Amino acid sequence: MTDEESLDPKSWSEMRRLGHRMVDDAMDYLEHVRERPVWQPVPESAKQALKRPLPVDGKDAAAVYEDFRRDVFPHTMGNIHPRFWGWVIGTGTPFGVLADMLASTMNPNIGGGDQGPNYVEVQVMSWLKEMLGYPADASGLLVSGGSMANFVGIAVARNAKAEGDVAREGLKAAPRPMVLYASTETHNSVHKAVSLLGLGRDALREIPVDDSYRVDVAALRRAIAEDRKAGRHPFCVVGNAGTVNTGAIDALPELADICKAENLWFHVDGAFGALAAIAPGLQTLVRGMERADSVAFDLHKWMYMPYEVGCALVRWPEKHRSTFVSPADYLAHLTRGLPAGPIWFSEYGVQLSRGFRALKVWMSLKEHGVAKYGRLVRQNCDQARYLEGLVEATPELELMAPVSLNIVCFRFAPEGIDEARLNSINEEILFSLQESGAAVPSSTLLSGSFSIRVCICNHRTKREDLEFLVREAVQRGRAIAAEPVPRS
Amino acid sequence: MTDEESLDPKSWSEMRRLGHRMVDDAMDYLEHVRERPVWQPVPESAKQALKRPLPVDGKDAAAVYEDFRRDVFPHTMGNIHPRFWGWVIGTGTPFGVLADMLASTMNPNIGGGDQGPNYVEVQVMSWLKEMLGYPADASGLLVSGGSMANFVGIAVARNAKAEGDVAREGLKAAPRPMVLYASTETHNSVHKAVSLLGLGRDALREIPVDDSYRVDVAALRRAIAEDRKAGRHPFCVVGNAGTVNTGAIDALPELADICKAENLWFHVDGAFGALAAIAPGLQTLVRGMERADSVAFDLHKWMYMPYEVGCALVRWPEKHRSTFVSPADYLAHLTRGLPAGPIWFSEYGVQLSRGFRALKVWMSLKEHGVAKYGRLVRQNCDQARYLEGLVEATPELELMAPVSLNIVCFRFAPEGIDEARLNSINEEILFSLQESGAAVPSSTLLSGSFSIRVCICNHRTKREDLEFLVREAVQRGRAIAAEPVPRS
Repeated sequence: MTDEESLDPKSWSEMRRLGHRMVDDAMDYLEHVRERPVWQPVPESAKQALKRPLPVDGKDAAAVYEDFRRDVFPHTMGNIHPRFWGWVIGTGTPFGVLADMLASTMNPNIGGGDQGPNYVEVQVMSWLKEMLGYPADASGLLVSGGSMANFVGIAVARNAKAEGDVAREGLKAAPRPMVLYASTETHNSVHKAVSLLGLGRDALREIPVDDSYRVDVAALRRAIAEDRKAGRHPFCVVGNAGTVNTGAIDALPELADICKAENLWFHVDGAFGALAAIAPGLQTLVRGMERADSVAFDLHKWMYMPYEVGCALVRWPEKHRSTFVSPADYLAHLTRGLPAGPIWFSEYGVQLSRGFRALKVWMSLKEHGVAKYGRLVRQNCDQARYLEGLVEATPELELMAPVSLNIVCFRFAPEGIDEARLNSINEEILFSLQESGAAVPSSTLLSGSFSIRVCICNHRTKREDLEFLVREAVQRGRAIAAEPVPRS
Repeated sequence: MTDEESLDPKSWSEMRRLGHRMVDDAMDYLEHVRERPVWQPVPESAKQALKRPLPVDGKDAAAVYEDFRRDVFPHTMGNIHPRFWGWVIGTGTPFGVLADMLASTMNPNIGGGDQGPNYVEVQVMSWLKEMLGYPADASGLLVSGGSMANFVGIAVARNAKAEGDVAREGLKAAPRPMVLYASTETHNSVHKAVSLLGLGRDALREIPVDDSYRVDVAALRRAIAEDRKAGRHPFCVVGNAGTVNTGAIDALPELADICKAENLWFHVDGAFGALAAIAPGLQTLVRGMERADSVAFDLHKWMYMPYEVGCALVRWPEKHRSTFVSPADYLAHLTRGLPAGPIWFSEYGVQLSRGFRALKVWMSLKEHGVAKYGRLVRQNCDQARYLEGLVEATPELELMAPVSLNIVCFRFAPEGIDEARLNSINEEILFSLQESGAAVPSSTLLSGSFSIRVCICNHRTKREDLEFLVREAVQRGRAIAAEPVPRS
């Protein structure tokens, strides 16, 4: 019997020692992140080191760790850095890192069952519903992120509102074409979900926005009426609690009223904006969200938890479960033993195997308390206002959109330069900021203008970082504008 | 400016110290797992401790860790234990745990971009394709697990084979009802995917199996012909490389031939069985898989990596990308800066935000080498054969299905007991094995008979553990059978 082998280490004490080194290195990495460039291009040496043949034989764990330290660890995305403000990306925390290690140690599969991790997720879901002012008897689960959370909400909407049994017979069973509504500023994960769910991208009616990038409610009403008149079947409105471009928040109470009057499912994409619900002085911004039939939001964004963890909430547990449940003999819910337990989360989402992402949520909320998260969300919004003020006080800079939450879009736009040249100058400013390691904003187009976009989901950012950004952007803009116009 | 706060610890040295304690506890937990019961019911005290109000204020990280140690850590699912063989659940490894900690430290979002973690996933995908004998120019990505991997494959199949533009116009644009085929033994995640994709559960034609639980190929041919004759549109066959109930492997080369002749998409669900491709002497079992248009498999099952990590491979990168891509101004692929880089994985799956699950794959494959993984897969299959032998050598036990890979289904069935009573006795044996902490098999129904199901995806299992199981099952069976029949 001695020929049997395992993946456990030959020496547990060496593995422990290696773990201690990693903890020290990880904490150093996080403690001193401010002293490093935010981001740098991946050097050719690392790219080459990551093009190796499939390892046939193993090597010492410590040697593998050295490979990691040399070829991977330094070449970060940068989102843990105080001056990272690209896209909508959170920061993570040291304790979250350790929680992930513990989750991986227990290594459960939280499809369901009578096991501690399952009760932890139940507990966490109860907390999250309370944080958003959502009914305690709603269903919900942790998912990989906002894209999946939107998929869950719209999938339930489709099945709940369909006029035929689309779960069994498919969308061809719907007597009228099903259509849904969202503003032109809606996140592309909604388009993706609509397409995957078999509704077709065209089923998503894109409604124009006002000057604040909020959905035009009158246009929405007209679109619904026109679709009904044309024999189509309006079934859902997707409201935004924080759009990705500018952080705009749709008029959620009005959308809730329309959905009620028109018998439509009301889904809210609150990927980051939903967290305004816990921030002092900002709660009213997302009022109406608690009336939604489903809500999608993330914890790896504005709750600053390590990737991946998002959340889908659904007001109607039976509609939710019936969309995803798929019984099987090998998954029988026995009344005793491990398969017993409070809930099978796998019946409420795509995944049957589900990791222990709930642990970092549980441990982080206990570590900091929800009040501190609320203050930090507020702090990021205050920082966005502060940056807005700096931009407005700087003649060469132009604010590109109203600041609703934590997103500031601006550009370098001294007088007398045409739009095309402004676009190329600002693109060059963005490259320069990123490549120098000074800061990582991202970009977007607003009314066709290339805009530098600063989204603050970052608990490490200080106002001085934003002052630095403005100084750097202006300096770089002047230098670039002074160069001869490149011939294209 | 001093009023700004962050989630970083007041004392980094205390956080380091706590991290060291956790590493020690985690390694102790894993090193001594064999000495503990496999699983135990969660005690009432822990259930109550996990029903607490939302924490408003935080507390010391070390105190939170104590809560975890008391209320969560002991109440494991048990799948890290050498005698856990329930469902299809992997074991994890100590180095995988540490890799997850490092992934969480870097905390990147691998939607894409010029960052080390993105190159790591590219590297890992290249290795995984090679391991399965799949074309190097195929596309693919890491996903949460087999359910999502099946969803990806069937989604691409739907869009690639549709007679209309279903991505844009939805399934109502398909002139004929689209239907696909899989055996009655197919995993329920396939049913779930078909329903979510808007095809309707009825679109999945369930084809009967032979005595070895392999799809009846003649019946499959007949079903395709009948559907064509009835004006439906056959578009896909799902083949099983290892069914969940018994580990049966469909005749993959024949399925590939049929798909080629009939112009159908060939998807293989190889959740665990795909890994036979790396096991000495087992490769021929999954021959034909390399001809599939898409393959789904898991690394958190038979590669023993911590949750969550699965993989979807697609032979046709452009069909794959066009199913999931959803362009947006805020995601512009700029030619320089962070948004540059080798690939945007977010354009090949549901998730836009994607964690660094690639790291544990990269580090684990380097630590052990693929040859050792292959030997362990083989070892688990040899152990299953060994258990089969023990069952056949034990007159009171009955083997319930042929052993194809690593799954053994058996029951306690002494002569002279009727079927209904056998079912209840075997259910009681299962409960008793689990509740005593002796072992965790799961169960399934095979031809209506309650079967104890042992699935060995466990690098810690030894043959002596299987001898123990057989002894315990027989002893418990005798005791239960000797009790008076309970009145129902």
